[in-house]
Amino acid sequence: MNILVINAGSSSLKYQLFDMITESVLAKGKVERIGMETAMLSHEPAGRSEFREVSEIWDHTTAIRKVLRVLIDPKEGVLTSMEDVHAVGHRVVHGGESFSGSVLVDERVKAEIRRLFDLAPLHNPGALTGILAVEANLPHVPQVVVFDTAFHQTMPPVAFRYAIPNVFYKKHGVRRYGFHGTSHQYVSQRAAELSGKPIETMKLITCHIGNGASVTAIKHGQSVDTSMGMTPLEGLMMGTRSGDIDPAIVPFAMDKEDLSVNEVNSMLNKHSGLFAVSGGLGDMREVLEAMKEGDRNARLAFDMYEYRLRKYIGAYAAAMNGFDTLIFTAGVGENSALLREVICSQLSYLGLTLDTEANERKGGGDRKISSPDSKVDVWVIPTNEELVIARDTFREAARIRGLSDEEAGAVTC
Amino acid sequence: MNILVINAGSSSLKYQLFDMITESVLAKGKVERIGMETAMLSHEPAGRSEFREVSEIWDHTTAIRKVLRVLIDPKEGVLTSMEDVHAVGHRVVHGGESFSGSVLVDERVKAEIRRLFDLAPLHNPGALTGILAVEANLPHVPQVVVFDTAFHQTMPPVAFRYAIPNVFYKKHGVRRYGFHGTSHQYVSQRAAELSGKPIETMKLITCHIGNGASVTAIKHGQSVDTSMGMTPLEGLMMGTRSGDIDPAIVPFAMDKEDLSVNEVNSMLNKHSGLFAVSGGLGDMREVLEAMKEGDRNARLAFDMYEYRLRKYIGAYAAAMNGFDTLIFTAGVGENSALLREVICSQLSYLGLTLDTEANERKGGGDRKISSPDSKVDVWVIPTNEELVIARDTFREAARIRGLSDEEAGAVTC
Repeated sequence: MNILVINAGSSSLKYQLFDMITESVLAKGKVERIGMETAMLSHEPAGRSEFREVSEIWDHTTAIRKVLRVLIDPKEGVLTSMEDVHAVGHRVVHGGESFSGSVLVDERVKAEIRRLFDLAPLHNPGALTGILAVEANLPHVPQVVVFDTAFHQTMPPVAFRYAIPNVFYKKHGVRRYGFHGTSHQYVSQRAAELSGKPIETMKLITCHIGNGASVTAIKHGQSVDTSMGMTPLEGLMMGTRSGDIDPAIVPFAMDKEDLSVNEVNSMLNKHSGLFAVSGGLGDMREVLEAMKEGDRNARLAFDMYEYRLRKYIGAYAAAMNGFDTLIFTAGVGENSALLREVICSQLSYLGLTLDTEANERKGGGDRKISSPDSKVDVWVIPTNEELVIARDTFREAARIRGLSDEEAGAVTC
Repeated sequence: MNILVINAGSSSLKYQLFDMITESVLAKGKVERIGMETAMLSHEPAGRSEFREVSEIWDHTTAIRKVLRVLIDPKEGVLTSMEDVHAVGHRVVHGGESFSGSVLVDERVKAEIRRLFDLAPLHNPGALTGILAVEANLPHVPQVVVFDTAFHQTMPPVAFRYAIPNVFYKKHGVRRYGFHGTSHQYVSQRAAELSGKPIETMKLITCHIGNGASVTAIKHGQSVDTSMGMTPLEGLMMGTRSGDIDPAIVPFAMDKEDLSVNEVNSMLNKHSGLFAVSGGLGDMREVLEAMKEGDRNARLAFDMYEYRLRKYIGAYAAAMNGFDTLIFTAGVGENSALLREVICSQLSYLGLTLDTEANERKGGGDRKISSPDSKVDVWVIPTNEELVIARDTFREAARIRGLSDEEAGAVTC
């Protein structure tokens, strides 16, 4: 069975095509600047060189058509016909309280994603457009949606409720939802596999540290708390997001600088974080470079970023009365040995000790970086959200055909 | 030397008169409803019954005159003449970055307190009015101001900076200041004394849990982090304050419910916290009562309150790479054995064990409630902010007279 995984934004979409027998990626790519004359398709078939094409692409329907065409293109393609796309999985950021797992797309699901536009105005509209665009091109292919929030729906009220008047929860859905759920779920399950322990006995803290960043406390396989909240703004300091601040700063800033609701949202989401503290550096790589050259703002930005992440790890240790496994993933989490080292050096009160050499070793792949006598296992596990989406899509698509996972694999390929 | 300690709000003031030889309270009381016809003075001379008087009191100057008169009243008083008030100490909430300790009041200090009205619009104006009212009544008596923020001025930038554009810090002073400083300082020093350890070797976490609530990480005697921020809104869930929320909730709530800046501030400061989650209960005592009767909202309110405090303790453990002493103080911290028990039962991963009997023992006073083999000492230490203010005032007043503390005590009484 071949699964096409789509991550659609308002003016772009990324895709990966999986062969689910081998869980290998047959091709991946993206379409950027949808809605412009200079839209670009970049397509990368596995093991072959990238193909690029600039053209007018006015909407997501056309973008999906371009993707499907290139997938079956005799030269650049990897499939013989569109019928070889057996199901499509979509990443959807916000599933609210309606979805605690992945589901097949039907009219009710589409309506619910639309209803949640209010909670995720920057993300859900793009995802729905992607779903409709696939529907227009492949009307008979099952589609599955995988929500960033779903894994966190196991959080208890003590973790997800805010201490503000109930009306905001009841009427407007104001509560902690959490995001990056597929990533936290994937790396926690992977760590359990690699450790040879049943996840039902484990207490894990997973740090998804990319341009967006969140930490999750996972007890016995279930998310019990996470640092992102109603929106992805809360929690850690991120690339351009402030993370936690005194909520009183928001009205204060609006008042002093005469900012509108949109402007203050934009300030906190797009002009804060590492970018603001470092004085305009774009990401952690640039911050680390500037630090080496003695830049004091970059140093402060790194220190704050590390300190706040460390405090969240400490908080979740207290939330679960200790933990046995700490995981770093995503861009910064996988690549910054320095960040991991500074954090772990300050967690020795937990009996956590790092294998410095393993931590600094270059090269990807899952790896344990704690020393053998450490009381907490520390792992670097590259995340793979697309694979989780493909697996969920595979499972749901097989289910409607009344097949077990094994049968689905056996029958369709 | 006798020190009058004043805590002035916009329409009320509280006072305590200390004899600094014995550090005993000669009298205490308050004036409420200043500015109304039905203002009330309540005066309680030590060991005697309370005296109350309702009268028109139009301003703080008149209120202070009433207080001074009752202090020297032949029947209700405790002094023979106004000249026996040797110095006056004031609690001032916000000292910004200007004050890292208590100072004698002069024109510059008054101007600075006024300049900080912007950061503490609900607190600093009342305090300045109190200072001017004392000045009008006792023009030659030295006055000292003691700031709630001063103890926290040792926080490093990594703890006090927010990850938002620099302009807000540089131009508007947006940073973490922290509050309850006199209380955190007092109980940490008291714990060091009682433990017989030099505070310079200790790592403490102090929980000031009253109607307002904050936690502080104190390393080697210095505040290195605290949960309240630019304002007292940030951090823990409190009686009527939300504490931490996703900052995106503020513009969202303003937009959805058409709230002004003032209305959203009022919602978060006065209608949130325990009050909101419990469905209108006024304080922790009422929440605990309702819980006993099976009230589910009260249970959730208590659980959230406890959980969030516990997470801060865990975060500060990570901030300091462990800690040796945990202190509970203020109304809830001193009185709720249940809260302390639930928290400590979930901190066993730190080797912390409670002496359940000591924790439940009724009666005030400083007491250790951890078991002898606990890796973290846990204390209940009743706070005494007025005594700290009196001590600081005493020291500053003695200093301008060129006296050592001992001499000041010997000479003036």
